[in-house]
Amino acid sequence: MEQGVFITIEGGEGAGKTTIISRLAAELSALGDTVTITREPGGIPIAEQIRAVILDRNHTGMDGRTEALLYAAARRQHLVEKVVPALEKGHVVLCDRFIDSSLAYQGHARGIGMEAVLAINAFAIDGMMPKLTLYLDVRPEVGLRRIQEAEVREINRIDLEAITFHEQVREGFLQLAQMYSDRIVVIDAEQSADAVFEQCMSIILKRRAGF
Amino acid sequence: MEQGVFITIEGGEGAGKTTIISRLAAELSALGDTVTITREPGGIPIAEQIRAVILDRNHTGMDGRTEALLYAAARRQHLVEKVVPALEKGHVVLCDRFIDSSLAYQGHARGIGMEAVLAINAFAIDGMMPKLTLYLDVRPEVGLRRIQEAEVREINRIDLEAITFHEQVREGFLQLAQMYSDRIVVIDAEQSADAVFEQCMSIILKRRAGF
Repeated sequence: MEQGVFITIEGGEGAGKTTIISRLAAELSALGDTVTITREPGGIPIAEQIRAVILDRNHTGMDGRTEALLYAAARRQHLVEKVVPALEKGHVVLCDRFIDSSLAYQGHARGIGMEAVLAINAFAIDGMMPKLTLYLDVRPEVGLRRIQEAEVREINRIDLEAITFHEQVREGFLQLAQMYSDRIVVIDAEQSADAVFEQCMSIILKRRAGF
Repeated sequence: MEQGVFITIEGGEGAGKTTIISRLAAELSALGDTVTITREPGGIPIAEQIRAVILDRNHTGMDGRTEALLYAAARRQHLVEKVVPALEKGHVVLCDRFIDSSLAYQGHARGIGMEAVLAINAFAIDGMMPKLTLYLDVRPEVGLRRIQEAEVREINRIDLEAITFHEQVREGFLQLAQMYSDRIVVIDAEQSADAVFEQCMSIILKRRAGF
């Protein structure tokens, strides 16, 4: 069924995911691919509504496991409604964050446990793992400084977590890169944007031969 | 921490769960227990809001796994906010449906698979399994006839599923009763309401000694 290529881009805050994704999409399109860029909840009404429950400011009593299950539910619906149909049409799908973010943030940094968070996400994904994951690696202090200096976007609740939290997130991603070394490629995202882009592009093209 | 007794009551449509639960609660109270009766989402705002997403009539495209994850999320929050605090206060908690309903309805009858649905519910429950589960067993045609004749409540979407679906649900519950024979007791709920009540009460009292 699935004809396209499913690629996810992961990274901490300020790693430069958005910029890289739009450059990769432009370049792949120029090379003749049809590209779908997406991120959860991806404009899928059910997933948006689930997200609204998670982000509701009145829900201060939301348990960490409830939150993890809700993220997995939104992921499932986005996958079924948006990612899979694009793959079936033969698109290259570039997805901003996916399962590894849940494993790094909730599994590792929040302390629920990677294995436990993996169990519910394996249920959500039901075998639809990305073919390739680019992990844009920056030290938290570099990423957060970028956000502040460049005023890329407003500082949000996650940015304001203690620096140790972001270090835990990074540690989680790096562990995942070791666990899934066939799928996840670590990119030094402290290089110039051009260098990061060239490296990502070259990995995608090399991997495609094997896809 | 946990001082109370967590008991769940399961059964298909028209099995008589509501009636039995209120009689059990009255009798246990008369014997000196403090009893909490509950059912998911149990008036917990986060769980109610999750339930609203599941039941939204516009969500015709909701995937079965998305639904199962949402049920597990609502279960988690209800457990944390209502069941656990009542148990910590030493109450007997009588809960109308719990994990076994998800396993029988979604895992078995909807065909997602019991093991897969168990994985996400194990994450949701995190070890808080009921000490005792009373499964009120009726043949689907008997249960559905009861609902129609007694006009106990309005016929809902689930009632209108084909009879084969309800047979699958029952088959699921009976499999669970074999898998978890220490925890689940099958009660013949085609007996008179008095007989069912007496049997449930006697099992609870016998088990309490061992609690």
